[in-house]
Amino acid sequence: MATNRQVKLIARPKPGLFAREDFSIEDASLTEPGAGEIRVKIEVVSLDPAMRGWVNESKSYVKPVPLGGVMRAYSAGIVDASSHPSFAVGDAVQGLLGVQQYAVSNGKGLVKVDLTKAPIERWVGGLGMPGWTAYFGLLDVGEPKEGETVVVSAASGAVGSLVGQIAKIKGCRVVGIAGGPEKCRYVTEELGFDASVDYKAGDLASQLKTACPNGIDVNFENVGGDILDTILLQMNVHGRIALCGLISGYTATEAPPGPKNIRAVLTQRLRMQGLIVFDWADRIPEAIEQLGTWHAEGLLKIREDLQQGGVDAFPDVVNMLYTGSNNGKLVLKV
Amino acid sequence: MATNRQVKLIARPKPGLFAREDFSIEDASLTEPGAGEIRVKIEVVSLDPAMRGWVNESKSYVKPVPLGGVMRAYSAGIVDASSHPSFAVGDAVQGLLGVQQYAVSNGKGLVKVDLTKAPIERWVGGLGMPGWTAYFGLLDVGEPKEGETVVVSAASGAVGSLVGQIAKIKGCRVVGIAGGPEKCRYVTEELGFDASVDYKAGDLASQLKTACPNGIDVNFENVGGDILDTILLQMNVHGRIALCGLISGYTATEAPPGPKNIRAVLTQRLRMQGLIVFDWADRIPEAIEQLGTWHAEGLLKIREDLQQGGVDAFPDVVNMLYTGSNNGKLVLKV
Repeated sequence: MATNRQVKLIARPKPGLFAREDFSIEDASLTEPGAGEIRVKIEVVSLDPAMRGWVNESKSYVKPVPLGGVMRAYSAGIVDASSHPSFAVGDAVQGLLGVQQYAVSNGKGLVKVDLTKAPIERWVGGLGMPGWTAYFGLLDVGEPKEGETVVVSAASGAVGSLVGQIAKIKGCRVVGIAGGPEKCRYVTEELGFDASVDYKAGDLASQLKTACPNGIDVNFENVGGDILDTILLQMNVHGRIALCGLISGYTATEAPPGPKNIRAVLTQRLRMQGLIVFDWADRIPEAIEQLGTWHAEGLLKIREDLQQGGVDAFPDVVNMLYTGSNNGKLVLKV
Repeated sequence: MATNRQVKLIARPKPGLFAREDFSIEDASLTEPGAGEIRVKIEVVSLDPAMRGWVNESKSYVKPVPLGGVMRAYSAGIVDASSHPSFAVGDAVQGLLGVQQYAVSNGKGLVKVDLTKAPIERWVGGLGMPGWTAYFGLLDVGEPKEGETVVVSAASGAVGSLVGQIAKIKGCRVVGIAGGPEKCRYVTEELGFDASVDYKAGDLASQLKTACPNGIDVNFENVGGDILDTILLQMNVHGRIALCGLISGYTATEAPPGPKNIRAVLTQRLRMQGLIVFDWADRIPEAIEQLGTWHAEGLLKIREDLQQGGVDAFPDVVNMLYTGSNNGKLVLKV
């Protein structure tokens, strides 16, 4: 009899990394979809930094994963049974289908993806949540105009690398901030950014000034801390800061210092705006369509770190997000 | 022979207050307007905190007042000679006419004001630059919607008092932050705010929570520092912060600490935007018209501190801005 192997959350993790004991891996029986439902055979699961927040009990922008529930994740797979008018057996779909081998869904929140434009792991990788974040965050919040200078921090990361490439498509001068010569080389030579700045090499301000001779019009900010403070002093009048992450403070036990150059927001009349991709939930198909087209045209270079081992490997693989041992967007093959 | 008494800037002030020696008060001969020009007999001069920045040599959003030039100021008066098709003798006008008894102008940047709607001192007072700042800053940057909660700091000041009154006109719940019981009483009892919070009375966070049971949707921020940090933690999702001033840091010799709760901009997807009224220069007539109408309808309570002594008193009166000894928007009668 066919089974569905699932990863369930059974304990709220203690501060720090996930522990093996936070999860239970179980074989459930395989259920048939009811009327208006489909069943998806999951092929790949996305691992995202947001997962650490999803399992906490505290109030956040989404409800926490309930204890005893299947671990939440963006997954992609192929419809293998359907009683839903909009989905046919064989369709490739992506959505919050969880860490399991099969998911039954009423189709709500699922999006169809085109495997002729990109392989399935890419649709939960660079063209999944990180891609949508880059797409809406840069275009709707950053509002870059042709010829403007866009600076993105964590430039070699899943989101940052796409932000820079989309900004290039839009005709901007693109500067990436990354740590170390290898990541800097990657963003200029492989991703095609105009310049890179190595924040580990010292004197960030003068490096940035050299890379941005006309000042900064748009900052897509993933890091915060000293990097944001340095950028603030080089922003042009009416510049935009799309605040996507504050990684520099994620491991702090108390609130890190705020941006001491906040006065630039006033004197330069900047707009600083926080963003979380769920706010664009009803426009995900637009991002999927546009990112897929650019990808098919060869305009987006994306790197996934495709891990093997199936759902059983999840508790170990997920921690690679926080130890930084992954090389590209982390995806688990089911 | 008629003369024009003028206050000229002759030295860049040292840090701190203005000094008598920074100015020269001279009698120039009265000139006739040329073709396309008008002459204005100035009746009142506005004194604004921005003046301290206008005299510094350092780069700012406007060019510094040149040494030997008439001190920059918003002034209002009556046209007493005209060779300009759009202005007639007897028109009341307002604009950057300087600290002097008469000004010759080509009309650029001047706006006509209606003395049946408000007396002339009000047109450089509450309905002058502070009014325009409140009008555009609240409505264009803060974008308050009916029923939302608006919090304004420095609520009893020239800008803050108008922000709150305009927000009331727009159907918002309005909470003012001010220092001391007298200012707090003024904003609720005289200006009609729904509640006030005395930042000098301690426990700002719980006072603010009580005053804003549904959280904060719009913050019109004049102060910064601890006040902004406290507000940040009570902002609702998609709230707006119109950053108009950071008074708390104006006297600091080095950059004061930044807002340590900046993370709320991300988690609540806030929009924080700096504003300087000059950015709306081409829409000043709209503000004049609307503010004048509201004023004539009795919807705006405004308090000017009308100082006597003519232009000779300027070097002393201007310092009242920084010592806080004025009681209402400071205006000098010429």
